[in-house]
Amino acid sequence: MSTIFSKIISGEIPSYKIAEDDKHIAFLDVMPLVKGHTLVVPKKETDLIFDLESDDYKELWGFTQEIAKKIKKAVPCKRVGIAVVGLEVPHAHIHLIPLNSMDDLNFKNVRLIFSPEEYKEIQKSITKA
Amino acid sequence: MSTIFSKIISGEIPSYKIAEDDKHIAFLDVMPLVKGHTLVVPKKETDLIFDLESDDYKELWGFTQEIAKKIKKAVPCKRVGIAVVGLEVPHAHIHLIPLNSMDDLNFKNVRLIFSPEEYKEIQKSITKA
Repeated sequence: MSTIFSKIISGEIPSYKIAEDDKHIAFLDVMPLVKGHTLVVPKKETDLIFDLESDDYKELWGFTQEIAKKIKKAVPCKRVGIAVVGLEVPHAHIHLIPLNSMDDLNFKNVRLIFSPEEYKEIQKSITKA
Repeated sequence: MSTIFSKIISGEIPSYKIAEDDKHIAFLDVMPLVKGHTLVVPKKETDLIFDLESDDYKELWGFTQEIAKKIKKAVPCKRVGIAVVGLEVPHAHIHLIPLNSMDDLNFKNVRLIFSPEEYKEIQKSITKA
């Protein structure tokens, strides 16, 4: 059964896409911890990020670096944090989270929900950065 | 002024070292969130991880992958999580955290403290994995 991320990659489930190449996709988390919270996902369905083949794994991080730089330019924050947890969806994914305090990376926090217009605005600001 | 991590790298401050090469070091967090919590640090003092030069940044992640695999073998856990926060020490570092639940990656949790013998035992189990 394909994961929710594979359905986003195939377009079956819509997303606010930030960037995409042949091996990776980045899109806004629709239940973000903070504004600009973005997910980076390898297109190949692999549960554990550390099980990716070494070159694929490094390429994924290279792609992530480009996205993080865009987020940093677009979203007011002290730095862009990283989290890989993956206990909920068995398809490796990297959380990029604009941080202003330590607690912005707390997955126990209440998730935010924006209006479609707000998501589009955040999407536009990051993709144009 | 050199960071606490540079002092660990130089040996001025002792650490429970897991692995080291010419550009990177990994050692146990002495105030871990969970048993086996390890820090991976590039030897070159750089505040923001995403400011590392692309090749250095990818090499750092490659080194991290090797360490994570050792941790996974040595420490009972569902998977090894990743966190990069960096608001406390201005020297890029990656947290590798053995996860059994989402909350294991919560930096608001009370940090653990082990005895020197316990740290040495954890260190040995990971380095030998």
